[in-house]
Amino acid sequence: MHGTRTSLRFPLGRDEDIYGFGLDFQRVRQNGSILRLHVDHWGGRPGRTHAPVPFWVSSRGYGVLVDSARYLDVWVGTSLRRDAPDPPPLLDRNRDRNWQAQPSSDSLDVLVPAPGVDVLVFGGPTPLDAVRRFVLYTGGGCLPPRWGLGFTHRTPTSYTAAQVLAEVEEFERRGFPLDFVGLEPGWQSHSYPCSFEWDPERFPEPQGFLTALHGKGVRANLWLNPYVRPGSTLHAELAPYAGSHCVWNGIVPDYEIAAAREIFTGHLDRHAVSLGVAGFKIDEVDGFDSWLWPDTATFPSGLDAEQIRQTYGLRIQRLVDDLYRAHDRRTYGLVRASNAGASRLPFVLYNDHYSHPDFVRALCNSSFCGVLWTPEVRESRTGEEWLRRMQTVCFSPLAMLNAWSSGTRPWSFPEVEEQVREVMLLRLQLQPYLYTAFARYRFEGVPPVRAMPLVEGFATVADAAVRRRFLDDQFVVGDALLVAPLFAGQKKRSVLLPEGDWFDFVTGARVGGGEVVEVGSDTLPVFVRDGALVPLMLPRLHTPAAGERFALEVRHYGRRPGSYRLYDDDGETFAYERGERTWTTLRVERDGDAWRGVVDGPEPPRIASIRFRFMTPP
Amino acid sequence: MHGTRTSLRFPLGRDEDIYGFGLDFQRVRQNGSILRLHVDHWGGRPGRTHAPVPFWVSSRGYGVLVDSARYLDVWVGTSLRRDAPDPPPLLDRNRDRNWQAQPSSDSLDVLVPAPGVDVLVFGGPTPLDAVRRFVLYTGGGCLPPRWGLGFTHRTPTSYTAAQVLAEVEEFERRGFPLDFVGLEPGWQSHSYPCSFEWDPERFPEPQGFLTALHGKGVRANLWLNPYVRPGSTLHAELAPYAGSHCVWNGIVPDYEIAAAREIFTGHLDRHAVSLGVAGFKIDEVDGFDSWLWPDTATFPSGLDAEQIRQTYGLRIQRLVDDLYRAHDRRTYGLVRASNAGASRLPFVLYNDHYSHPDFVRALCNSSFCGVLWTPEVRESRTGEEWLRRMQTVCFSPLAMLNAWSSGTRPWSFPEVEEQVREVMLLRLQLQPYLYTAFARYRFEGVPPVRAMPLVEGFATVADAAVRRRFLDDQFVVGDALLVAPLFAGQKKRSVLLPEGDWFDFVTGARVGGGEVVEVGSDTLPVFVRDGALVPLMLPRLHTPAAGERFALEVRHYGRRPGSYRLYDDDGETFAYERGERTWTTLRVERDGDAWRGVVDGPEPPRIASIRFRFMTPP
Repeated sequence: MHGTRTSLRFPLGRDEDIYGFGLDFQRVRQNGSILRLHVDHWGGRPGRTHAPVPFWVSSRGYGVLVDSARYLDVWVGTSLRRDAPDPPPLLDRNRDRNWQAQPSSDSLDVLVPAPGVDVLVFGGPTPLDAVRRFVLYTGGGCLPPRWGLGFTHRTPTSYTAAQVLAEVEEFERRGFPLDFVGLEPGWQSHSYPCSFEWDPERFPEPQGFLTALHGKGVRANLWLNPYVRPGSTLHAELAPYAGSHCVWNGIVPDYEIAAAREIFTGHLDRHAVSLGVAGFKIDEVDGFDSWLWPDTATFPSGLDAEQIRQTYGLRIQRLVDDLYRAHDRRTYGLVRASNAGASRLPFVLYNDHYSHPDFVRALCNSSFCGVLWTPEVRESRTGEEWLRRMQTVCFSPLAMLNAWSSGTRPWSFPEVEEQVREVMLLRLQLQPYLYTAFARYRFEGVPPVRAMPLVEGFATVADAAVRRRFLDDQFVVGDALLVAPLFAGQKKRSVLLPEGDWFDFVTGARVGGGEVVEVGSDTLPVFVRDGALVPLMLPRLHTPAAGERFALEVRHYGRRPGSYRLYDDDGETFAYERGERTWTTLRVERDGDAWRGVVDGPEPPRIASIRFRFMTPP
Repeated sequence: MHGTRTSLRFPLGRDEDIYGFGLDFQRVRQNGSILRLHVDHWGGRPGRTHAPVPFWVSSRGYGVLVDSARYLDVWVGTSLRRDAPDPPPLLDRNRDRNWQAQPSSDSLDVLVPAPGVDVLVFGGPTPLDAVRRFVLYTGGGCLPPRWGLGFTHRTPTSYTAAQVLAEVEEFERRGFPLDFVGLEPGWQSHSYPCSFEWDPERFPEPQGFLTALHGKGVRANLWLNPYVRPGSTLHAELAPYAGSHCVWNGIVPDYEIAAAREIFTGHLDRHAVSLGVAGFKIDEVDGFDSWLWPDTATFPSGLDAEQIRQTYGLRIQRLVDDLYRAHDRRTYGLVRASNAGASRLPFVLYNDHYSHPDFVRALCNSSFCGVLWTPEVRESRTGEEWLRRMQTVCFSPLAMLNAWSSGTRPWSFPEVEEQVREVMLLRLQLQPYLYTAFARYRFEGVPPVRAMPLVEGFATVADAAVRRRFLDDQFVVGDALLVAPLFAGQKKRSVLLPEGDWFDFVTGARVGGGEVVEVGSDTLPVFVRDGALVPLMLPRLHTPAAGERFALEVRHYGRRPGSYRLYDDDGETFAYERGERTWTTLRVERDGDAWRGVVDGPEPPRIASIRFRFMTPP
């Protein structure tokens, strides 16, 4: 169009469902949406979200990536062309009772503010295959260090080193799992904008603090936002590479420029990573518009403010990941903005929103576009709400309590303390299962947590109208665990079970299959696919240390035989990329009236013993 | 920027207030806003509104027009440059209690998606002067026919000719004013999309119907949206000039093309205007996005879909206005989208929103950017709400009850019937005052209804923080009437009276001056400037017919002498543009202990007699 814009039109079938376009909190099925894909803190505007990934997947089993770092406008099945071959019926609003304000459409339209664009179409045949191809195209998913899949707690921002250590000790004393703590802005001498240096009053001896922390089996993750404070040493070095505008008086370095990346990375290395800090939380790289740089800002690399906005979170993730790779240490952290191509970067999205149903919806949507999301817990009005949120987060990519402001602890609600500890311990127990799911993400592009349209056996259950009711509030972890969170106030809920039989995670009893069932429970409703094997550790408070071997309990559910490929490696370094990894096949087969567990293939180096437990009588 | 965009930056002073950017329902003072100016039905997104006029006015007494028909992004005092000479203080969120998420800014930024743009700066010295210059630059304001300032009632969409006439008779019988009725989609044989022809069942004899209507002293206004129905005669003629996309299956003619305008105008002429129809209501030229054409649509003139979107309402207004000019008959109608340059086009904006406070806020905002707005009444939950809404609309540019769906009548709430009739009659009585105010709009660019920042004596009352509380819910009609609507549930309210003394409209008693006062009233709180003259007709149900002469009561308020220029012309044609108009000065001066009224200048042709009434004892 006029040389400065490109319009794209994709045919949309009458019964075709479209998912994707990033981390949406409002809807999963995108038919009828009109979005402007624009990095921002979520606030209700379609497309204005932390990861507005320009990728979508169709129920017909293909995916499309519009490879642009600009603000894209998308119309998902709303437009009607004059020459449409199959237009909706011509009605008269005066007389036709079934006149609709929103007639059907046969198109998905995209407007790109550039003279041309690359469009990639990923084949299926299933929607999951399309997503896998997309994830693999961008490098495969991330494989976090094992400890990343433990539990993490972010302490109040004003905490001192002594207070953090005391908190860690209290986790241990009360028997609550903990693998890494998050230090919030207060670890820095100044924040908003940042100095990226330890505060001498709260953390007088950073190395000593970290050593003490590690002695308790816990690592540290440091909060930052990337806006560099005038007067800091970093400011003088980065000033030549900064954009025209400030964020909270801090400069915005242009990380398209290698020299800028080196300076910032070097500083983080000297002040944190080389001391042993295990990761970062990259805050406020999304928006809101009112304090971020305006689209009129300029940057020394020559990229537009729009392009920098759409990629700033990606850039910071990348330079942090590169820094840890240089140390041959895996990291796992948080970030508040991302985009296409992020799947291999080991960061999980979070935000300031707090609706539990919206959080679960975002978890579902994250699986369509190669990003990870945590429905973090911060506070609650009741013990019931606290428990429900804890249950959800323990089945998400990052099990986290963020008490930066609330000062809560997992045991803050005594009436549910026991159940909270139980689900946190279950999180640790599930680590081999989760770690294997992430290995499949890494090597096969299968998202570790999946929305229902990406789950085998969903697309044929009941009818389309029924299936649409279950897109937003249930998901599958790995291949075999269907999780259906309850929200505060709900005594029971409906769950749509895909084809085949599904069994209760706790009891092993059959629940149903290929249908909608009603369930009610104090525990989290979790159902297991027929024939599935679920490897668990024994309950423990910390991820096994490097070199430590642990016992494995392999649960089998249902009445069918099954097999499972268990992944293992050193859990910490990138040696796995150099071939040092094992896939061990575990099988359960019939043995007369009983089951028999079989271990095929290389012995996993870190597994001390394997015991099979058959949950469902044959 | 890269040849395809233009960024503009305007300095913004610390105490400078910015108003404008079109018909905003959410805020009047725009400092801190971030808007995307984009024609749409209002829905809460800043800039997405019916008239997103790219003009703003500063409290420092200048106005700026960015003359672009594209979607503009605006940051009103949010951005911070590195080289800002007076940046906000550098704070540390860890330790400074007064750290703010939104620091102060010295800039107003605009991003234009074009390689260049015309920017016009209008001088003051007052904000009102800047607005006047802008209005005059675009041709001056509109001067409606006198009857346009009477009362109008839109009948239920399915009404037949007989039902409309019966409703008109009932207005007469019950003593309620009525100057024109609005016929909604049902007058057409088909709508959504439209045929633009009378329905043979509901209106079998259009000319006879209109003649009967006119015989009762009432005119007709016809609803339409511009989307042309397949199968209609107009469709075959306009098809070659239509865009690529449909709206409700109707084609979207490209009215940039003269031939298309001629065809549509000719059809409206033959079917409506030549029969005596007095005006149109131009609906759904704004949005929502989901049914309007997408930005990827193409149009035969070569204009972008974006440009067509931003100007479609303007174009239809223009061709309708041209049609009536060709008949030498003035019209006054409604439209749901407009933009810069609309001030001389005789149309009033309306929408489907219904918050009374938001309606009043929009009325205030309309005055900054050369558009007119009506806070139409449709229904209410209580008689109190009904009365309050009626009171507001009777002091707006178009006094209208829109019963297209609700089937209400002014007397639908018996408990307030008398008060409603009273305020409707007052609307007719005020016609000379309102008509003169519109004449000043036409010739001097002064908006007939004004927000407080455009009112003399406002900018120095109390302090800035106090004044900001009164931007949204009070306004001045003409020069002299300060109107402070009450909302349902309010027994009393605060009113900010500008400098000088102000007097109660009904009693003439002094209320206060240069201060905030508390008022409470069943009637509408209306206050009159000291020394003001307010010309009124006697209560009547219809605007005086062409050639009919009427008596004038000229009220004087306060303790100062005053003068007033009363405007008159034939009230119907464009003869006034050919010089056939009078300005007659009315004066009130001291005569010992009494007042004396004086008439200077040409006798207004339609005024039979002038009687002065002195409301405030000297």
